[in-house]
Amino acid sequence: MKRKEEPRMPRMGTSRESRYGVRSLADTRGGVVFRPIGVIRSEHTAAKKTPIQPVFAAGCRGRAIVRREFAAAMKDLEGFSHVHLLYFFHKAKGSKLLVKPFLQDVDRGVFATRAPCRPNAIGLSVVRLIRRTGNVLHLEGVDMLDGAPLLDIKPYVGRFDRIEGSRSGWQEDVDDRTARRRGRRGYRKGRKSR
Amino acid sequence: MKRKEEPRMPRMGTSRESRYGVRSLADTRGGVVFRPIGVIRSEHTAAKKTPIQPVFAAGCRGRAIVRREFAAAMKDLEGFSHVHLLYFFHKAKGSKLLVKPFLQDVDRGVFATRAPCRPNAIGLSVVRLIRRTGNVLHLEGVDMLDGAPLLDIKPYVGRFDRIEGSRSGWQEDVDDRTARRRGRRGYRKGRKSR
Repeated sequence: MKRKEEPRMPRMGTSRESRYGVRSLADTRGGVVFRPIGVIRSEHTAAKKTPIQPVFAAGCRGRAIVRREFAAAMKDLEGFSHVHLLYFFHKAKGSKLLVKPFLQDVDRGVFATRAPCRPNAIGLSVVRLIRRTGNVLHLEGVDMLDGAPLLDIKPYVGRFDRIEGSRSGWQEDVDDRTARRRGRRGYRKGRKSR
Repeated sequence: MKRKEEPRMPRMGTSRESRYGVRSLADTRGGVVFRPIGVIRSEHTAAKKTPIQPVFAAGCRGRAIVRREFAAAMKDLEGFSHVHLLYFFHKAKGSKLLVKPFLQDVDRGVFATRAPCRPNAIGLSVVRLIRRTGNVLHLEGVDMLDGAPLLDIKPYVGRFDRIEGSRSGWQEDVDDRTARRRGRRGYRKGRKSR
């Protein structure tokens, strides 16, 4: 238990792609390739002015536009009030191990934060789904930068995703008022710059 | 509004990698490369016998072993009772647009499910963090296959992630008892095969 373990990564033959039909490199140690399924459209064009989480982006509308080839995969999404969006932090400037989160001026391990500058710059947001029109999701609570490549959409399922009585580490040191002020980063509903 | 929109994907020059310091292809239309940060160790070795969500894997222990180069990024994670794990569904056999979910015998759009056979085979689970020892997270509620390449760790923050009064579409047609029976897929605490 005391010794430091090093993860042994799965070794896969070069036949991987044909065997599983997924778009990936032959060996995950070299990386896994994901192709965007669409793009995010939002009013946020400057990273520094973008709310850091949907909860701080109340009233902020946006869209997820999915490639037509995947439109059929969006069937039944309209029954869900909220969805998880996975997307690429396409403006992230490299990765750091320690980062001062937006909500607090203390260095934290980047995996204990939701900051973009992570080893794999994948963003996760839970946004409200207003409606679906074909291959477009109309969203509220959008904290994503305009143009962010969309990687996946998953329904938010209360039964799986609503954890009661969770403990939130350093986040609990940040009072709600400070969190709201710093989390919004200047964004106010109806006070858009355009 | 009626016409079908096709997402315009961000075009990026070949200098992208050096500009942002992230490991990605020059152009996201060709795909984004993510390198696993570690690996999942669990008792689940057969996809067909693996619980489909942490809520159906109560009592099931496992570990996330992170590459030593990223160990420092795990600082402060121990303050959180739950974490989101993003991982690669490395055994997924290709992607489908429509899929019969494990909980229901009706074809659903794959983005309205959490099924592995998605265009980008990225898994998302909220698991309980028991403790951290160095670069290893000890977890409970593990629904991941042994050997799954880990892509990211994010804290579960009640303030961001606990949505009250969400509506869960077709999932609400599945009663709790059926969900538990079908979601566990034979897994019972203490009835491990080893």
